[in-house]
Amino acid sequence: MSDQQFPSKILENAVNEFAKLPGIGKKTALRLVLFLLKQEKESNYRFADAITTLSEEIKYCKSCYNISDSDICSICSNPRRDHSIVCVVENVRDVMAIENTHQYQGIYHVLGGLISPMDGTGPDDLTIAPLEEKLKKGEVKEIIFALSTTMEGDTTNFFLFRKFASYDVKFTTIARGVAIGDELEYADEVTLGRSLVDRLPFDKEAL
Amino acid sequence: MSDQQFPSKILENAVNEFAKLPGIGKKTALRLVLFLLKQEKESNYRFADAITTLSEEIKYCKSCYNISDSDICSICSNPRRDHSIVCVVENVRDVMAIENTHQYQGIYHVLGGLISPMDGTGPDDLTIAPLEEKLKKGEVKEIIFALSTTMEGDTTNFFLFRKFASYDVKFTTIARGVAIGDELEYADEVTLGRSLVDRLPFDKEAL
Repeated sequence: MSDQQFPSKILENAVNEFAKLPGIGKKTALRLVLFLLKQEKESNYRFADAITTLSEEIKYCKSCYNISDSDICSICSNPRRDHSIVCVVENVRDVMAIENTHQYQGIYHVLGGLISPMDGTGPDDLTIAPLEEKLKKGEVKEIIFALSTTMEGDTTNFFLFRKFASYDVKFTTIARGVAIGDELEYADEVTLGRSLVDRLPFDKEAL
Repeated sequence: MSDQQFPSKILENAVNEFAKLPGIGKKTALRLVLFLLKQEKESNYRFADAITTLSEEIKYCKSCYNISDSDICSICSNPRRDHSIVCVVENVRDVMAIENTHQYQGIYHVLGGLISPMDGTGPDDLTIAPLEEKLKKGEVKEIIFALSTTMEGDTTNFFLFRKFASYDVKFTTIARGVAIGDELEYADEVTLGRSLVDRLPFDKEAL
């Protein structure tokens, strides 16, 4: 499609804009644009407006750096959450995923990325300094690392653990093991191996 | 994700707008929105602007109903194209696909859809009347049907053929057969059967 002749510059421009989105190629972009053309103008104005509003008005919580509509997000400003436990995550998607479990009552700290020399993301690009500020205040008792088990996640985990080692805080990571509902034979050997090493006392209640 | 709690109404609104696009679910929508948030504002303004411009300024050629920046598109206004041959297609994507072959020198007529009782699209929703106007002028010698070989495509083909049967015009359809580069054993039996029935004299030059 790269040498495709568009019958209209406006069409071509819209397709090119959509094709900049991750995972959207030129063909999909054209399909999306033709869908918009079939819609009522009002719907498209709402769509364009949502994008503009997103860019102009979205805020990041000044405490945990999660996306928020106010200066302090609803989690950080909730007095019923345990502010002594901080769960360190990569981004807002992880916060939403953990919130969805209804198993966590502490607060979060959103790093905004992971250390990745390949992508040019270093520690200074993440919200590590404000996390250290929280530790210095001495109110945090436990830091839970909930980062992806990728090269980048492990690197970031290790970096943070070393950097904060001198603080009197308990460091934990989320449990790795065979997913609930998974057939044992299909679990990859690294995960299965880890789940054996990290075996737990049998708990009748959990079944 | 349906009962997902978003940390921000603005974020939720943007995600919902993206999720209205065909083939984009809530998870993908969130991924796209987070991508936009990482971009510079200027890029997002350009994106929103492309959508607004698309809705406000795009035109349809008054002759062939293809998308165009002017009243008559560049194909219809080109005197070097053969205006006596009209290729009937469903939409602009088909025009672009055929133009890309560089094998066609006639003009087009874009129906804007296919007859589909399931989707509530009837003949009156398509640009059939203006096509008949073209036929009445007597300048058209051949109509090439280049519609999809789906139920809807075949229905539309048949409807148009019957409707225009009284005009002194040659009706053709694009050839159906085994795709070039395809292994014969993987061709579906309907296509393979049709390619046998419609077999052509051996042409050394085509190899």
